[in-house]
Order: sequence, then C-alpha cells, then structure tokens
Amino acid sequence: MSAASSECLSPAACMHRAIRLAWRGQYTCDPNPRVGCVLVKEGQIVGEGFHARAGEAHAEIHALRKAGEAARGATVYVTLEPCSHTGLTGPCSQALIDAGVAKVVAAMEDPNPKVSGRGFAMLREAGIAVEVGLLEEQARLLNPGFIRRMREGLPRVTLKMAMSLDGRTAMSDGESQWITGPAARQQVQRLRAASSAVLAGVESVIFDDSRLTVRAGQLGLDDAEAIARRQPLRVILDSQLRLPLAAACLSEPGRTLVCTIQPEMSERRRKLEAAGAEVLVMPANAEGRVEFTGVLRYLATREGCNEVLVETGATLAGALLEADCVDRLELFMAPTLLGSEARPLFALPGLATMSQQRRLQIDEIRAVGEDWRISARPVTAAARQEQSR
Amino acid sequence: MSAASSECLSPAACMHRAIRLAWRGQYTCDPNPRVGCVLVKEGQIVGEGFHARAGEAHAEIHALRKAGEAARGATVYVTLEPCSHTGLTGPCSQALIDAGVAKVVAAMEDPNPKVSGRGFAMLREAGIAVEVGLLEEQARLLNPGFIRRMREGLPRVTLKMAMSLDGRTAMSDGESQWITGPAARQQVQRLRAASSAVLAGVESVIFDDSRLTVRAGQLGLDDAEAIARRQPLRVILDSQLRLPLAAACLSEPGRTLVCTIQPEMSERRRKLEAAGAEVLVMPANAEGRVEFTGVLRYLATREGCNEVLVETGATLAGALLEADCVDRLELFMAPTLLGSEARPLFALPGLATMSQQRRLQIDEIRAVGEDWRISARPVTAAARQEQSR
Repeated sequence: MSAASSECLSPAACMHRAIRLAWRGQYTCDPNPRVGCVLVKEGQIVGEGFHARAGEAHAEIHALRKAGEAARGATVYVTLEPCSHTGLTGPCSQALIDAGVAKVVAAMEDPNPKVSGRGFAMLREAGIAVEVGLLEEQARLLNPGFIRRMREGLPRVTLKMAMSLDGRTAMSDGESQWITGPAARQQVQRLRAASSAVLAGVESVIFDDSRLTVRAGQLGLDDAEAIARRQPLRVILDSQLRLPLAAACLSEPGRTLVCTIQPEMSERRRKLEAAGAEVLVMPANAEGRVEFTGVLRYLATREGCNEVLVETGATLAGALLEADCVDRLELFMAPTLLGSEARPLFALPGLATMSQQRRLQIDEIRAVGEDWRISARPVTAAARQEQSR
Repeated sequence: MSAASSECLSPAACMHRAIRLAWRGQYTCDPNPRVGCVLVKEGQIVGEGFHARAGEAHAEIHALRKAGEAARGATVYVTLEPCSHTGLTGPCSQALIDAGVAKVVAAMEDPNPKVSGRGFAMLREAGIAVEVGLLEEQARLLNPGFIRRMREGLPRVTLKMAMSLDGRTAMSDGESQWITGPAARQQVQRLRAASSAVLAGVESVIFDDSRLTVRAGQLGLDDAEAIARRQPLRVILDSQLRLPLAAACLSEPGRTLVCTIQPEMSERRRKLEAAGAEVLVMPANAEGRVEFTGVLRYLATREGCNEVLVETGATLAGALLEADCVDRLELFMAPTLLGSEARPLFALPGLATMSQQRRLQIDEIRAVGEDWRISARPVTAAARQEQSR
C-alpha cells in the first residue's frame, strides 16, 4: 500500500491501482477473472485487494477486510462488476452493502450471464451510487479469455511459435532444439502459466516428447512455486490415439486430455487411461482429424478454459489459422537463418495469389534476450474483437 | 548555426554537431566520405560546414570560409582527418595552417592510404595541436563503406529484402507487388540514394522490370531533386547477357553496368551497349555464374563504390550470404502470411542441421508505417567488423 499516503487520488489513479492489483492474480486465479479492488475514503486508500485463487476470497472481500470499519462511506474502485450470485464465496455486492460503502466505481460490467448488471442493480437498490466504464479498455485487457468464454462459449486462443528470421521452425528433419534462447523460453513458461490449457497436436508431442507443463524454476518469478501448483490442462489432438504410453506429459502433475475421433473403447484407449490420460471422443472434421472448434467449445463450456495456448507444429498451426480459430499470435523470432529447406512456420498450402494473403495486425515487437517477440492478431480475429465491443 | 549562441560548448558537443553536419552529405557526397567540421573560438561556433558533393569544397573549407578572420586561434572539430593531398580540391591541412587555427580535434584518422596520418603530421609540423579519437565510434558510422573500401578494396554490401512475417518474398508464381507499404518503399528509396551502386541479378530485373533508380518524388526529402541528380550505378549480374534491350533501367538517367562471363564481343553485347548498357566481362564461379566477389572488388577499386545495395531474389541473395559477401541486412517485414508454398527469403539449400544455421546480429527492429524494418548483420560480418577496428 505504498500509494496509501499520497493525497488527492484521482478516480483514474485509483482504478489504475485496482488494475495493477488485478494483474497480480494473472497466473493463479483461473478459471475466474482477474479482479482488483481499491477502497478510498477522504482521498486515502483504506483497503485494497485482488482475486488470487479460485475458491478463495474475491478482490472486494480482501479490500473490505483490510479496511474494516473504514469501509463505511468509502468509494469502491473495482475492475469488474461485483458479483450478485453465491458461488464458492458469498456475493460481493451484498458484502459491500453490509459494509456501508457510499459509492461503487466499476470499470466494466461482468460478462458472466449469471451477473451482467445484477450486481449493479443490487447495489443501486441498496442506495449505493454506481458508476460504470472508468478505464474500461484497460480493464478488458485483464480478461480477454474470460470475456470471450462468457460471451461466445469459446476460449481465447493464443498460438505460440518459435521461428528463425526467415520464418522457419525446424530443420527439414525436424531438428529444432534451442532455436530461441533462455529469455524467450522463460516468456513461454509465463504464457503457459497464464493459460487455462496448453494444446498441441500429437505429432509435435511425439517428436519433442513435450511435457507442456509450467516449471517453477523457469518462470523467474518470486511466487513461482505457488504458480506452478496450478498446472494448465494439457490437451492433445490425437485422432488415432498415437500418444505413446510413456509420453513424458502423462507422468507430470496436472491433467492430460487426449482428444480422439475413435468412438469405441479400445485396448489402446484403456492403456492410455491407465497411463494417466483422460480420453475425449470428438467429431471428425473433413480431413478425418479431430474437429478443433468442437474441442475449443468443449474446453470453454465444460472445462472453464478462458485462455488456450497452442504450442504445435506447422500443420496444425496452419489449419487453426485457416479455420480462423486463432485470436493472437506470439512469435518468438531468433536472429538466425535456417534456410529454404527448413520447415515452414505455417502450412498454408492453399494460398496462391497475393489477394489470398493472410493479413495480420502486429501489436508489438520487442527484444527478449537475443530473440524478438512479435505479438500479432489475424486481421479477421482483430475485426471480430472490434465487433464484439 | 542555431548552436552558435550557446555558451560553454563542450568538445563532445562540438564533435556531435560536426557529426550531425556530416550526415547532411549522406545522399550527395559519394564517392567521398561524409565529413563535418565546426570551428570554435572562445566557446562560440565561428564557422561550420560539411562536404556536400564530390568536386566541391571539403567540410573544413566551408567552415573556414564562414569563419573568415575569426578562424585565427580557433579550435577545429572535424569528423575525419583533414586531407594532405591535392585531389579535386587543395589539401585541407594546408588551408587550416594558412588560416592560423590553434588546435585540431579529429574524430578519426583517414583510412585513405593517401592520407592516413599525413594530414595530422602536416598540422603538427606547423605547430598546431592535434587530438584524435573524440567520438570515434560515432564518426566511423558515417562512413562504413568508405572505410571498408580504403582498408580492404571492397564496398560495404547491404542486402535489402521485402518479406512477409512467415519469411516469404513472393507467391509461388513470383507475384510480389505491394508486399510492403509506401513508408517502407520510401525507406528503400533513401537506401538507394545513400548507395554508390544498386546491384541485382538479371532474373529479378527481368521479372519486375526494375528501374533501380532514385525517384525524387518518393524520397520525402526537402532536397530530393538535388539528391536524385546523382543516380547510383546500376549493376546487373547477367552471365548470359539475357537483359532485354527494352529493359526500363537502360533508359533511365545514370549508368547501367551489365556483368557477364561471355568474353567475346557478340551481336547481343553490341546491341546491349547500343541500348545504353556498359558491359563488363568477369570470371565465372564454380556454378557458371558471374563471380560476385570479383564484381564487388571491381566496384570498390575501379568505380569508387563505398556502399553497394543489393536488391534481388532469393537465389542470388542466398548465394551472397553463403559466400559471406553481405555486411548488412535491411529486411522490410509486412504484417502478413504468404503461406508455405510461397517463395523463400533466401535460397540456402545447403543447411541441413541446426549447427549449420546462419546466426545474425539484429541491431534494430522498428515500425515503418504498417511494416517493420529489421536491421541485422550476419555474425561473420559483425565479427569481421569488430576485428578491423
């Protein structure tokens, strides 16, 4: 609470602080949204908090506990509408009413259909002034996956790739170890930690024997051990159940979901389940592979996945792009050339003329150790996001 | 002379100004080095100048003319050792002696073997104090091509490519128009304007009917008309003299040098010469193509080329990289995907394992309109530059 002593805090400054607090839950609060809350009275912060972990207290409750009696008559700055329903914890709107706060300033309405305006209504009925929309744009950036899941029943999909400057991911025989350096790998670990699920094609899992886990020692964060206790769900698209029983990912902490198109219970499936996999039978697409839109919808609606990180090879990556299933690209570009026989970044075989090119919106390019991180969005996905605002 | 009124100018500030002035000759002084000069007396700038155009006065002469009588007893800040030889203009060292300056501070010695220390010796013999090395690193950046030519008899070679985010330069049928936007094309025009020669393979010249010229209207610079009066030498590697007689580049202002391995005077060659080409017979390399190291050496030693800009296709670009002939890469990356059937950035067919990858040193990535400019050096070239310091 270093800001507690500063005077004349503007509403924007208070909301900024609430947003900063909310980010502190980014690696741990899944599947809940990231929320921060600041209680201000007579220009002083009297309580603040953020939502750290699903099942534990919401941001508002933390802030109210810190404020104690000082909450009475305070203004509440909160990054998301206080909840109106009794989930794992009691409704925050009721707690704010009980504490006697004077006013609630929320950055945005909760897209959760169980709330969406009902929290505000409860507060207003209790005579509390409510304002909505302060720093909404920045607050939305806290929870793009949660918003997408609530609104569309789909997770936000981030495609992560490591490539050379000439757009290659591996040599022609598949050799790809250490294209990028340790700083880039640390960022990939953080991307995993901020994700609900990590999805890969079985080919790339077999080739690299990927574990797809968050490793505390590679996060470079103070609370790495606590973060790594929540492992993202591992999702492997494996239409023919080819995942080896000895695959490293099956013996890691956390769950591994293997998606197949084989409907019958087979010996192979029994063995995979015995080895630790959960097997999910999904419809096949036109190419006889697992229909990934169905998988994504399952992950959002049944598994509560907000953010799905895809770490896979050129074929599945290209197919996801083709199917317009990618919301965000995180490309780690190493300062090297792998040559014209090396493997392409995306298998996009259908493009023949410039008019068919897939335009991207590049949001940022920044140095990461020796490598560069390119954050981009397919233009179609960017347009979709604009529309849903 | 906006800085003339400021007091207590530090030596570094004076040299900085001289370097800034020198850059003003970047598009026009070729084949001479870019040089700036500032005369300071009693903490005031009394004269300054830069070298604008070969055959015209050197930076020191401009500064002395501006200073007039005030040059007596002044300190001279100059980015390169004053010359000692009588070229197109008289020796600057003698002019400084005649003007009675008290001291000369030079950023670096002239790498020109006709000078290299003799200018300093002349000044010292006349009783003038001489200091060398102030902001030398920054002064060297003014003239990397000139330094290379003087030291090694080779130009600095910059390879410019336009590519998609997935490292492709054109669709499979060669279609490549408008990968990058107008801001990137303006920067390419400026790269041409700052070059002594623009080099291309005949294939790409035929395909695009490239003019390889500086167009005043596309430079976006105040003195564009004056800049475009000096056209870089156009150099086309054309082992079998396949350049069409109607090629656009042959009817543009400036010279076109066609490098062939056909030793005999042929009807074809006569026609090309009649159409405006100068034909140069060069040795063939192992692949039966023009041996490009020989061409580069010819351009430096016979044509006085400091900076050669290569604008060509994947085959020649890859071969130049393979042969370690590239000093700098300027890649313009468009935010788009052209897919896995599109043409590769560099034909580097020999690379099979990660240990053969070609590492680069990326110096900068910056936004250029909708596109991104990546400035890089092959690690071998970077190491060579370090050694030659």
